[in-house]
Amino acid sequence: MNPHQPSLDDLVAILARTPGTLAALLEGLPQALVTATEGEQTWSPYDVVGHLIYGEQVNWVPRIRHILSGETRPFDPFDRTAQFRQSQGKSLADLLRTFETLRRDNLSVLAGMNLTRTDFERVGLHPDLGEVRLGQLLATWAVHDLDHLSQIARTMAKVHTSAVGPWRQYLSILKDR
Amino acid sequence: MNPHQPSLDDLVAILARTPGTLAALLEGLPQALVTATEGEQTWSPYDVVGHLIYGEQVNWVPRIRHILSGETRPFDPFDRTAQFRQSQGKSLADLLRTFETLRRDNLSVLAGMNLTRTDFERVGLHPDLGEVRLGQLLATWAVHDLDHLSQIARTMAKVHTSAVGPWRQYLSILKDR
Repeated sequence: MNPHQPSLDDLVAILARTPGTLAALLEGLPQALVTATEGEQTWSPYDVVGHLIYGEQVNWVPRIRHILSGETRPFDPFDRTAQFRQSQGKSLADLLRTFETLRRDNLSVLAGMNLTRTDFERVGLHPDLGEVRLGQLLATWAVHDLDHLSQIARTMAKVHTSAVGPWRQYLSILKDR
Repeated sequence: MNPHQPSLDDLVAILARTPGTLAALLEGLPQALVTATEGEQTWSPYDVVGHLIYGEQVNWVPRIRHILSGETRPFDPFDRTAQFRQSQGKSLADLLRTFETLRRDNLSVLAGMNLTRTDFERVGLHPDLGEVRLGQLLATWAVHDLDHLSQIARTMAKVHTSAVGPWRQYLSILKDR
């Protein structure tokens, strides 16, 4: 057993908070901030929420089931640009609501699996990373949320890089990436 | 006039959302995450909320008033470790409530100042940075929130660095700093 493996409850504590956190941060924000990016080939807060939705639909729970089924084929690869098609025509408020519903449903499914510490050691095959364990997949789900939360904060901050003037040197977030 | 100066409304849109965002992210979280740091001399989510409280009390609004008063002395320096004394014995829930109240009160004070674009060009003297403008101070207030939100997400993520296993290479947040 991996001593660094957090408990399922600790991971769910993070996963359950993400929809409310994103709604509090983004809902009703001026459109220029919602659609701002860090430059070409980077994602706006709106794009990120769409990406999180697609992950709830095709990535996390399907991969958990894939591992539990004992399937030896690799996971299906994840499409990192699906949100550019799938979010079209939807408001940010729509996307936030959809994400909240999908996440709640997925956490119910997860609870119903009654996963044990032994299950956390079960192995699946990632198309690029090779062997991965169920516990690693669950921890990644939570850290992936935090990574994108941080990305949204950074994107919103960088809109103001020139507005802060000389304070720029104290604001590390403007220098990340 | 600085063409990169965001409007007061756009900055307030960010500032007004931070207390609710932090409450959604942190309230009720397991204590091990609330007090986790990125290593020595770094701050836990709990420390960060205390720092934000102290900023509401002694930094942002007092510096706005300092500039508007035409004072030519530099601003008082800001104590970046005050929260280690001031937060003692307080729960995270207490701190989140205090921050929410202080921020709401400060945004009322700000609204009552009826600041104009011309006011944004007024100059104050920073003890280290030299001349700064009121508009830059206001933008810094908002970006400072986002910087610390990102720091909290990063700190929570890094707790799981070893738990994610090979996925570590895909999770940029684990490599920031």
